[in-house]
Amino acid sequence: MGEAVDEPIEATGDAEAEYADDVTRERDELVEQLRRVQADFENFRKRTQREQAERAQRATEGLLETLLPVLDNFELALVGMEDAPETANVRKGVELVYAEFLGALEKAGLERIAADGSTFDPNEHEAVMTVERDAEGDGGGETVVAETVRTGYRLKGRVLRPAMVKVAR
Amino acid sequence: MGEAVDEPIEATGDAEAEYADDVTRERDELVEQLRRVQADFENFRKRTQREQAERAQRATEGLLETLLPVLDNFELALVGMEDAPETANVRKGVELVYAEFLGALEKAGLERIAADGSTFDPNEHEAVMTVERDAEGDGGGETVVAETVRTGYRLKGRVLRPAMVKVAR
Repeated sequence: MGEAVDEPIEATGDAEAEYADDVTRERDELVEQLRRVQADFENFRKRTQREQAERAQRATEGLLETLLPVLDNFELALVGMEDAPETANVRKGVELVYAEFLGALEKAGLERIAADGSTFDPNEHEAVMTVERDAEGDGGGETVVAETVRTGYRLKGRVLRPAMVKVAR
Repeated sequence: MGEAVDEPIEATGDAEAEYADDVTRERDELVEQLRRVQADFENFRKRTQREQAERAQRATEGLLETLLPVLDNFELALVGMEDAPETANVRKGVELVYAEFLGALEKAGLERIAADGSTFDPNEHEAVMTVERDAEGDGGGETVVAETVRTGYRLKGRVLRPAMVKVAR
């Protein structure tokens, strides 16, 4: 009977030790799994923050891009009015609307790319023509923007549309 | 010696059982914690999806809101030009720019709130004046919009600015 009693006790001991081992393994796996989920969550949170700012920026960009041709044509219309002196009275009103329009776009982050006279920068300028540089140039071989053909724009530092320019060599 | 040996074995057995209990508790807590983190992650993911669409919409809304006064003043300038027949030539150009401008805004989701003659809706119309209804009215007691004082706009169904109207009772 001693043996009969001993046997189950030993078996139980083994089963308990086995159980403890299993649970320990489970616990360790769960710790690892929890660590992974928390890391994934944290990465997702960071990525999301970046993406949200980018998404808002892209929405603004999309709208501004459709408005740039309007701005171009607005400017052309104003130039046309300069050649028609009889329109002086209404021109003032149109100029005010133009200034308000440009102001609203600038408030949204739109920036004009300065071009005339600056060093040619292929990231911001698109050369459509090359002209002879003035004789009094420094002759340093540097390519400069001689004239802007179409204004370029940036949105908060990013080029929306490069300036179309004539360059002087 | 039998006892001396038995004692440590029993003590070890207790410690083992205690250890198994502790690990089991830890495991159960970890399962619970993992479930919570996963649920938080899932909720965050869903909320983020909603917020991203909203954020893009808000960016567009903000820009459109600053452009509505430009649209108003553009319209006023065009009305002013109607009264100055000598500007007929340049007016065409300005009208084209206006049409292009409105087109770009509509492409972004801007919708005019139809007002004149429609039933007064406090969600879309802001009554600034009440006028007498024509004698031939149906007399149903319904309040209708008699005239739009300032155009109202929606962005993809959401009111950006209600229409300012005169109502007829």
